[in-house]
Amino acid sequence: MAKKIKAFKDKGNQLVVSVSAMSGETNRMSALALEVQDSPSLREMDVLLTTGEQVTISLLAMALQQSGCDAISYTGAQVRIITDSEHGKARIKSIDDHRIRRSLAEGKVVVVAGFQGVDEDGHITTLGRGGSDTTAVALAAALKADECQIYTDVDGVYTTDPRIEPNAQKMETVSYEEMLEMSSLGSKVLQIRSVEFASKYQVPLRVLSSMIDNPVGTLITSEENIVERALISGIAHNQDEAKLSLIGVPDEPGIAYKILNPISRANIEVDMIVQSVSAREGLTNFAFTVHRRDFDKANSILHSVCEKLGAKAVQSDNQTAKVSLVGIGMRSHAGIAAKMFEVLHKENINIQMIATSEIKISVIVDEKYLELAVRSLHKAFELEQK
Amino acid sequence: MAKKIKAFKDKGNQLVVSVSAMSGETNRMSALALEVQDSPSLREMDVLLTTGEQVTISLLAMALQQSGCDAISYTGAQVRIITDSEHGKARIKSIDDHRIRRSLAEGKVVVVAGFQGVDEDGHITTLGRGGSDTTAVALAAALKADECQIYTDVDGVYTTDPRIEPNAQKMETVSYEEMLEMSSLGSKVLQIRSVEFASKYQVPLRVLSSMIDNPVGTLITSEENIVERALISGIAHNQDEAKLSLIGVPDEPGIAYKILNPISRANIEVDMIVQSVSAREGLTNFAFTVHRRDFDKANSILHSVCEKLGAKAVQSDNQTAKVSLVGIGMRSHAGIAAKMFEVLHKENINIQMIATSEIKISVIVDEKYLELAVRSLHKAFELEQK
Repeated sequence: MAKKIKAFKDKGNQLVVSVSAMSGETNRMSALALEVQDSPSLREMDVLLTTGEQVTISLLAMALQQSGCDAISYTGAQVRIITDSEHGKARIKSIDDHRIRRSLAEGKVVVVAGFQGVDEDGHITTLGRGGSDTTAVALAAALKADECQIYTDVDGVYTTDPRIEPNAQKMETVSYEEMLEMSSLGSKVLQIRSVEFASKYQVPLRVLSSMIDNPVGTLITSEENIVERALISGIAHNQDEAKLSLIGVPDEPGIAYKILNPISRANIEVDMIVQSVSAREGLTNFAFTVHRRDFDKANSILHSVCEKLGAKAVQSDNQTAKVSLVGIGMRSHAGIAAKMFEVLHKENINIQMIATSEIKISVIVDEKYLELAVRSLHKAFELEQK
Repeated sequence: MAKKIKAFKDKGNQLVVSVSAMSGETNRMSALALEVQDSPSLREMDVLLTTGEQVTISLLAMALQQSGCDAISYTGAQVRIITDSEHGKARIKSIDDHRIRRSLAEGKVVVVAGFQGVDEDGHITTLGRGGSDTTAVALAAALKADECQIYTDVDGVYTTDPRIEPNAQKMETVSYEEMLEMSSLGSKVLQIRSVEFASKYQVPLRVLSSMIDNPVGTLITSEENIVERALISGIAHNQDEAKLSLIGVPDEPGIAYKILNPISRANIEVDMIVQSVSAREGLTNFAFTVHRRDFDKANSILHSVCEKLGAKAVQSDNQTAKVSLVGIGMRSHAGIAAKMFEVLHKENINIQMIATSEIKISVIVDEKYLELAVRSLHKAFELEQK
C-alpha cells in the first residue's frame, strides 16, 4: 500500500487515505467481547472495534514515513467525523476538513481511520457494514476531491459475474444508479451505502484492484458524464433468494399488510413482492422473496397466516435465484423486457416472478437455470462486445 | 476485576477505574511497528499503543455491565487528559472532570484508559513508564477522591524484599517521601512518577494485591497522617548498580564536570557520586555508579577521560550492589548511620561508597554481601517486630 501511495504522491497528487482494520481483527475482538458479555453493549463494542483502524492508520503512516513519504494519521474523532448516535450503524453528519487541509498543505499524506466517527457528545461510533468505503467517500466529498478510489480484491465492475460468464467485460464507466441497482441485486463489489453517498455528493468513485500495478478499474460517476451509454450495463444475480407464495387469498383491502406484517415483525426482510389475480374470482395470489437464511422461519409464519386468512395453500421454494438486467438505457428503449422474456423462453427457462424498476428488470427462476440465464442474456444483449 | 469493582460499588462508593493494556499487547504492537519502520515515529507509536488501553476499557465496561453494574468507558482524549507534546513520555497538564462527574452522577462506574492523553492540539500521547499508575493518581487528584488504590501483583510495601528476608513486614502506612526514596532505590512496587504526583497533590495512595479478596495493602500518605513513626521504615536494595572510579585525578575546579559530561552525553544516567581526597596531595579520587547495562560503555568512556585528564587509573566493578536504609525518623535521630556502619562492620562487609540524604543512607557493597547486609540491618533495626 505504501508503495502505491508514494507513487501517486510523487506524481504531484495530494492524498488522503482511509483504511480499514487488518483482516481477522474485527472477528478476534468480537470474540473477546462475547467472552465478557452475553450481548455486548453497542457503545462499548464501538470503543473496542475502532481500535482496529487505529492500529492500521499508525502502521500505514509509519510505512509511508519509512518509504520517504511524510505522513500523519488521524482517528475519526481527531478529524471530527461527526455521526449520529446509532452505535454500530452510525451515519456521518459532517467532517471538519480544517485539520486535514493543514496537514496536506504541509506536504503530508493524511491517513484517516475508516469505519469510525464520534457523535455530537464525543462518544465513539462505527458506521457499520461498508463503513470504510463510506468514510472514504465522505472524505472525498468534504474535501471536494478529484476522485475517490476504492481498492478491493476485484479490478473493476463487470457486465456480469466472470465466474459464470467468462466473456464478462470490465466496464470503463457505470452510473451511480446502475451501480446502486447492481449492489442491491447482489453484486458484492461495493457496499450500497458508499454508492448512495457518492451519488448524493457527486463524488467520482473508482473501483480498482489492490493487487495490480497501475490499475484502471471502473469509474462510477453521474449519468451525464458517461459519453457512450449502453442499452444494458450489466446482469446481476443473487442466489440467496427464496420464494414464498400464498395461493387463493380473499382479495380484500389490507391483505398485503396482513400477510407481510407478521413477516417483518419477525425481523425478516422482504425483497420482491408480487400480487396477481387468481383464476377464481375474488381470490388473489400473493408471492414474495426473502433471504434464503430466513426461509424456514418465513415459511412457518406464512402457514399460520394462511390458516388465519382462510387462503387455499402455501407454495414455498428455496431453490430459486434472481437474475436482473440493469441499464439506464432502458428508460428510453421499450422492448427490453420483451427481449429478456424471449431469450429466457427460448432456453425453456420458466419465469416465476417479475419485478421492474426504471432501470432494472428482475426475474425469479429455478436456481438450476441461473448460469444458463445469465450467459444467454449476456450474449443476447451483446455485453461481451463492450 | 469486575467482581472487585462491583463489591466496592455496592458498598455505596462512587468509582473511577483506570486500566492498562492486556499483558503482552504493548510488545506485540511494538513488534508490528518495527516490521514497517526501522525507527518508529514517536507520534504514530502513541496512536498505535493507546489502542491497548482502549481495548481493555471497553472489555471492562462490558464485564461490569454483565455483572449488573452500570459502567461507561472513556479514552484519554474523551475525558480531556491534556498533556504536553512529548510523545512516549508526556506529562499530564490537566484533566476535565466534567464528563466523569456527570457519568458518576448517573450511577455509572467510569472506566478510563490509563497511560494516555492528548496534547493541546489533539494529538494522541502516552505517558511512558508507569503511565497507568500516573493516570489513576491524576484522576484521583482532579476528582479529589478519598483514596487512589493501585492494584498490583504484591500485597503492599514491605520493610524489605521478602525474597531476601522472610521476616519482612508489610507496612500499614508509609510517607510519600519514604516511598519516593524506596522507588528510586529499586523497590519495584510503584513507579516513581505516580508517587511524585500523589505527593504533589496529596492523594492518599493505597497499594493492594489484585489476587487477594478484601486486601488491606499499604497506605502511602503524607507524613503528618502517620501516627506512629518508625525510626527506619524499610531497607531497599538494588543489584543493578555498577561502580566506576577514577583514581588520582588532579584536584582542580570543574573536574566533576569534565568526568561526568562525556558520560551523560552518552545518555548514561549516573546514580551515586562521591569525590574524596586522595592520600597524595593535590589529587582526588572520583567515583560514581551507573546501571549495570551501561557499565561497558561507561568504562570505555572513563578510560579515555583518564588519559585526557592525566589521572592515575580507572577502577571499575560491576559486581556491586546498593543497600539503603529509609526512614523519616532519621531526621530527628542521630546515630543511625553509625549504627548501620557498625552492623555491616560486624558482618565483615566492606563499604565501598556512601551517600546520604535527609531520610536515607545508601551504601555500595560487594554484591555477594547483598543478602547478608539486608538481613542483618533488618534485624538490627528491629523491623521484623513492626
